[in-house]
Amino acid sequence: MQKQKLIPLRARRLGIHTHNEAVVFMRTDCHVCRSEGLSSLSRIILHAGGRETLATLYQVTSDILGIDEAGLSETAWERLGTVEGAPVFARHPEAVESFGRVRARIFNHRLGDEDFAPILSDIASGRYSDIELSAFITGTSVFPLDEPEMVALTRSMVAVGERLVWSGVPVVDKHCVGGLPGNRTTPIIVAIVAAHGVLMPKTSSRAITSPAGTADTMETLAPVDLNIEAMRRVVEQESGCVVWGGVVGLSPADDVLIRVERTLDIDSEGLLVASVLSKKIAAGSSHLVLDLPVGPTAKVRSETAAVGLSHRLSAVGTAFGLEIRTIFSDGSQPVGRGIGPALEALDVLSVLQQADDAPLDLRERACTLAGALLEIGGRARLGEGRLLASQTIADGRAWTKFQRICEAQGGMRSPPVSRHRSPMLAPFSGLLRSIDNRRIAKLAKLAGAPVSKAAGVELHVRLGDPIEAGQPLCTVHAETTGELQYALDYATGTAPIFYIERV
Amino acid sequence: MQKQKLIPLRARRLGIHTHNEAVVFMRTDCHVCRSEGLSSLSRIILHAGGRETLATLYQVTSDILGIDEAGLSETAWERLGTVEGAPVFARHPEAVESFGRVRARIFNHRLGDEDFAPILSDIASGRYSDIELSAFITGTSVFPLDEPEMVALTRSMVAVGERLVWSGVPVVDKHCVGGLPGNRTTPIIVAIVAAHGVLMPKTSSRAITSPAGTADTMETLAPVDLNIEAMRRVVEQESGCVVWGGVVGLSPADDVLIRVERTLDIDSEGLLVASVLSKKIAAGSSHLVLDLPVGPTAKVRSETAAVGLSHRLSAVGTAFGLEIRTIFSDGSQPVGRGIGPALEALDVLSVLQQADDAPLDLRERACTLAGALLEIGGRARLGEGRLLASQTIADGRAWTKFQRICEAQGGMRSPPVSRHRSPMLAPFSGLLRSIDNRRIAKLAKLAGAPVSKAAGVELHVRLGDPIEAGQPLCTVHAETTGELQYALDYATGTAPIFYIERV
Repeated sequence: MQKQKLIPLRARRLGIHTHNEAVVFMRTDCHVCRSEGLSSLSRIILHAGGRETLATLYQVTSDILGIDEAGLSETAWERLGTVEGAPVFARHPEAVESFGRVRARIFNHRLGDEDFAPILSDIASGRYSDIELSAFITGTSVFPLDEPEMVALTRSMVAVGERLVWSGVPVVDKHCVGGLPGNRTTPIIVAIVAAHGVLMPKTSSRAITSPAGTADTMETLAPVDLNIEAMRRVVEQESGCVVWGGVVGLSPADDVLIRVERTLDIDSEGLLVASVLSKKIAAGSSHLVLDLPVGPTAKVRSETAAVGLSHRLSAVGTAFGLEIRTIFSDGSQPVGRGIGPALEALDVLSVLQQADDAPLDLRERACTLAGALLEIGGRARLGEGRLLASQTIADGRAWTKFQRICEAQGGMRSPPVSRHRSPMLAPFSGLLRSIDNRRIAKLAKLAGAPVSKAAGVELHVRLGDPIEAGQPLCTVHAETTGELQYALDYATGTAPIFYIERV
Repeated sequence: MQKQKLIPLRARRLGIHTHNEAVVFMRTDCHVCRSEGLSSLSRIILHAGGRETLATLYQVTSDILGIDEAGLSETAWERLGTVEGAPVFARHPEAVESFGRVRARIFNHRLGDEDFAPILSDIASGRYSDIELSAFITGTSVFPLDEPEMVALTRSMVAVGERLVWSGVPVVDKHCVGGLPGNRTTPIIVAIVAAHGVLMPKTSSRAITSPAGTADTMETLAPVDLNIEAMRRVVEQESGCVVWGGVVGLSPADDVLIRVERTLDIDSEGLLVASVLSKKIAAGSSHLVLDLPVGPTAKVRSETAAVGLSHRLSAVGTAFGLEIRTIFSDGSQPVGRGIGPALEALDVLSVLQQADDAPLDLRERACTLAGALLEIGGRARLGEGRLLASQTIADGRAWTKFQRICEAQGGMRSPPVSRHRSPMLAPFSGLLRSIDNRRIAKLAKLAGAPVSKAAGVELHVRLGDPIEAGQPLCTVHAETTGELQYALDYATGTAPIFYIERV
């Protein structure tokens, strides 16, 4: 194992983008591949200048690479932090022993702390391949995690990342269990709550399977990739912030898992509970208000399922001293008008700025949740929080606070505007009876959201509206004509997104 | 969707090896990525000169690639069958609709023919990513397939590939349910059975999770990558053959799944049954003899499990008119001396050539199974097949037939010899009580088998042998010092492979 360390390869940055997977390209006939007996898709350890990463090997039999070069993907390049031509050493990795525990789980053995700890540690440090991550996610979805497993998984997810501690109490947070397009209450809530001096150091995620996560939306208004020090400075100054959890390093294994969950479009209860709570616990929260939208095409489809999930979240949260209040809300249609990062940001701005056409449903939801947080935070008596929240928007304090938070995060900016758009027209007249949340979310994703910030869907109608033939139901926004066409093809080729009853 | 077809990229062969996954590299700033709004790891359809393939996109921000070039991995290059500089068109793929059925299965909905057919068709045509394949394998392992599902899966696996039809009846086959290192009876059995004119058109697999599959071993003695026409010619001439099933194109989805199963080291009952039977049905077999080794560290660990698996295989086989006879055998220790392609081939040769040191256990097992096939094939009365098989070795007919088969397959050759080897010595004296099949298989794999044909483990002891301290228990063979060292490190770092009882 020592010998080949004496003869390194030379680092070469290939500028190849592979998301989070480190990839290294080597000539099949290089001395490392020959002496180590490596083949393509081998997993190998690279080290350079004191830093190490596990990487997937692709072998090369052409001259795009020199025989003494290790071609690095961007992720490998960043993890090694090396320079062009610097020596790179390669060796067989130790076997990823913890995957044996995943394999046991697949064959129906329940896992405990002693199992999840090494699994999550290996996941967080990038030692699991995509195939192994997919097996972990699928395995814990088919044979669902029970409560002790959820506690153990949550604990392990917290343990492998950073953990914040705040001087004030309470430290409040809110979370919406997804599935409802456009439900972008967070920036409004943080502004209201922080305006009253309640600590709300909010870390948000990017989209898992939706067209936009709060971090994606907030990013169109201000920088969100703050590190812990910068985040702390913002919160100390303004009482609140809305930053991306990924940079802060809370529950980093969760981010690795989310990437594969997104590909699979799987988001099971156990992983959801651990994902939500590990972030809150790591963020140092003491109180959490949960928004659970319930509706036939929302993530949670029935009252029973909502109550079950709420119980599970509360039970697991309690194991970590986290107090949780759940609010069930209407999940029958999208919230606001915009679906997609920039379009949702425009809704947020119009509520805070009290524009004439501000979406009332978004304002109402934000006030309900912010009200609960103001009550928990001791700023309003039980039952009076909602009114106080509404007043905080009405008197402009929320808008002022939001601008201050954006400035503190690095400077407020305007959401981008889409380059291409096309309306979808009503095929006949009638009454709008339902909107399929899942299909409209997919439409927004096909149009390019959340990768293209300006892309998405702008809704022009609400449930119960009378519809005229030829009236625009929504407008699809895209950055490229290819994506616009792709989204429109989907809309015409699938079951209807809007169900109009002929009257 | 039409527009970008007018402006192709130019094909460039990058010589990058990625196993079965087609990968295309494009500049982030090329017109296709911009107009289609593509990002790294997007799945896209490439077409060139009338041929199409689905590929994974890696974006490039360096000048290893021209802005108008589509850099193709070897798999992509082969699937498109294009030439340097030829126009390559790219577009968004249609969504892989069939994965929705896999997702339903993950949430515990059973599947039928109408589900497996599109899933297997998409898998066989390379439309599933590794993440999706892993989810399919894991999902059907955690919540196991029931019998109707196994039948449906088997039918779909047969349907997506080639299917052979033979004029003679019966067409016999044998299969050993893995887990027993070195159990390389097939080449011997085919030689015996074919010597009596019974049709045995054997297609074999490469290793799934073992150090050698029959195809890996046979390849060290003769070419095994014959197409259907070549295979048919060999069988018409010699009554039998031993070829690799992958080239013949029987049950091609199975080969795609096997690659990911190998990575996961998962081989569940449902997938095993469908894998085994789909190959036999597609090969046109009418009768099958199954070898089920049972032992504490074999794949099948108890008599109960063996009986259950045998029933399942028979039940599913019957649905396709396949008659199955199961033989339970001793699975307590490896068979023969060699573990690894070339080392096992040497055992096969020594049995057929009746060498003085030929491993008796391998000869016995081959005769038992060949005997059952001779009885099924009408060449021996019930209970007399085994003796006839033994005589066929003794009078040299089996060896003659084997050489003729090898010649017909393209020419007999000698197995390669390893470059590096190191013995493992007994730490103290005693009696050899057990050998861990799984650990010794892993040792052989770490030494490089099956990729390095000459690599593996050569056993020098059998259960019950008296052992002297310092006596070699086995010899590890490897092609490179790196692999030799890696295997030896494993052997010293793990629980003992050989259990010696002090006496």
